[in-house]
Amino acid sequence: MFSRYRDDLESEFDATVPLMPAAGEVRGLYSMLRYHMGWADAQGSDVDSPSSQGKALRPTLCLFACEALGDKWRRGLPAAAALELVHNFSLIHDDIQDGDVERRHQPAVWSVWGQPQALVAGNAMRSLADLAALRLTRRGVSPEKAVGASLLLTNGYLEMTMGQCSDLAFEGRLDIGLDDYLQMVSRKTGALIRCGMEMGALIASDDPEEVRAFSRCGSRLGRAFQIRDDILGIWGDQGATGKSVGNDIRRKKKSFPVVYALSVAPDPARDRLREAYSRETLDDECVQDVLGLLDELNVAKYAERMTREQADLALKEVDSVSMPGWAREEIRLLTEFLAARQY
Amino acid sequence: MFSRYRDDLESEFDATVPLMPAAGEVRGLYSMLRYHMGWADAQGSDVDSPSSQGKALRPTLCLFACEALGDKWRRGLPAAAALELVHNFSLIHDDIQDGDVERRHQPAVWSVWGQPQALVAGNAMRSLADLAALRLTRRGVSPEKAVGASLLLTNGYLEMTMGQCSDLAFEGRLDIGLDDYLQMVSRKTGALIRCGMEMGALIASDDPEEVRAFSRCGSRLGRAFQIRDDILGIWGDQGATGKSVGNDIRRKKKSFPVVYALSVAPDPARDRLREAYSRETLDDECVQDVLGLLDELNVAKYAERMTREQADLALKEVDSVSMPGWAREEIRLLTEFLAARQY
Repeated sequence: MFSRYRDDLESEFDATVPLMPAAGEVRGLYSMLRYHMGWADAQGSDVDSPSSQGKALRPTLCLFACEALGDKWRRGLPAAAALELVHNFSLIHDDIQDGDVERRHQPAVWSVWGQPQALVAGNAMRSLADLAALRLTRRGVSPEKAVGASLLLTNGYLEMTMGQCSDLAFEGRLDIGLDDYLQMVSRKTGALIRCGMEMGALIASDDPEEVRAFSRCGSRLGRAFQIRDDILGIWGDQGATGKSVGNDIRRKKKSFPVVYALSVAPDPARDRLREAYSRETLDDECVQDVLGLLDELNVAKYAERMTREQADLALKEVDSVSMPGWAREEIRLLTEFLAARQY
Repeated sequence: MFSRYRDDLESEFDATVPLMPAAGEVRGLYSMLRYHMGWADAQGSDVDSPSSQGKALRPTLCLFACEALGDKWRRGLPAAAALELVHNFSLIHDDIQDGDVERRHQPAVWSVWGQPQALVAGNAMRSLADLAALRLTRRGVSPEKAVGASLLLTNGYLEMTMGQCSDLAFEGRLDIGLDDYLQMVSRKTGALIRCGMEMGALIASDDPEEVRAFSRCGSRLGRAFQIRDDILGIWGDQGATGKSVGNDIRRKKKSFPVVYALSVAPDPARDRLREAYSRETLDDECVQDVLGLLDELNVAKYAERMTREQADLALKEVDSVSMPGWAREEIRLLTEFLAARQY
């Protein structure tokens, strides 16, 4: 999907995190970033077939919005690269924060180079992202729009930070409602996805209503993406996701299925759920018990319906925006993929 | 000095890190930032006489450059606030990195709220700084200049990051020359100080030569500032600096006096120095021995001469720039203060 953006995106990434041969320490710093992105191994050698690169969802949405609104989409490349780098900066810091030793089937940056270096590497990644967005002017984007795009990116990331704070605050609580949950994910995950659509639309269009429509579409897509992620976190196929079934239950993650179950379960079942999530750790038996309860309550089906609903709403948001037939078809396919993906 | 900027700066800071009463977690996040800035205590209550605010050197330089070049200096306030917040964001992360439990005579953010929260708080502080710089347009600064100022700020911070990497890399080495050292500090400390002068000049002036002159002046001031800092780190008065005499020697910091001594000491003295700095830890006797060696080599005098030299060069850089008499006098006083300060 959207494979026509791939080569240009890769060149743009490469130019945004350049290997500067000058000073040794700088080279070392950039090597960490290239390792995290899956372009190089821990010794700094280039990887031939970068497999761990992830889905590049945010830059793809940005370039798509640009192209769908009739613009020369290559003008959006710096914004697309910036989005992916901000996303990856946040992953480097997340892994430090959560003590996660692995990322995309390889050791996390901090577990290779230590926390202080990973902290600095993440901050450098973010600087490179900000520079990329500010340099949109070099591609012929007006300074007004470069400022606007940079504001969107920074606000998007700040919103994401707020979502992370809510997520941390929710950890110890059992009284999270579905609305609380949806607000939290629309910040934590939705903000940068929305940002992709909105930045692309802003670069391409002078009509604020079009930009807002793409922004709202992005918000819906973000929700669909996260609920699907939560489904995969519990019932996903281990081979495709790299995680075992029930993984998010074992980690006591307050994901969509659990929040929903806690809010609708009738009394004896609800008590069992609350009891399980009050424990220090969940053993296998307990995980099986929770899985059984979710089954009884038909949670998977409800979560899938919600994903579908958000996906449909996403498409509806851009219904009135005029775009070429291919673009309408592409956004339909993309939404379909996000709502039904197995990985 | 420059007390006329103080009230406006304080209001600008306040507006840049607003206490949003809306959501609980966001309020919590901003409270951490306000605590770090010295405006609130750890419980979130406002502090009446904020004493731990630091010197606000970077914003002062920015507003001074703005005013000296004839501009309405208030237009530079968002840039000034951004500089101070970026500086403080880096301090929050530095304390995590170095495991320093205290900052400005109070517990560091991470030692109050834990590392994960401090990491997020630092990142939020940086977002607010970036937003402030991008919003220069609201003060009537052109979008071109807002992009330019944001590029300066981001590049300045990236340069600072590079300096931190060099600093880390120097730790285990005994072969650091004075040039290596000066390049490292001009990045680590100098970049944001230079940035203050350069951003202010950019906002006020359309003459690239004036902007460059202020930039070079800022670089020199940064060096003078850091060498003076290094002098205070070894011989500073404990009451004024909050650190004990010989503190940086005990921590085996490769600061200017030590790098200089290692490069000029004749052979038996040099061997003693190298031996001391190769040890795991330095006991009191060893610290006294190093202090004695520095004394014999007249290092303090040399370091003071170097500070003076950089300060003089700083003033020379703006000699040919036309500015009002009061501004010429102010920059002379400021330079004097930086070169001779006791804290």
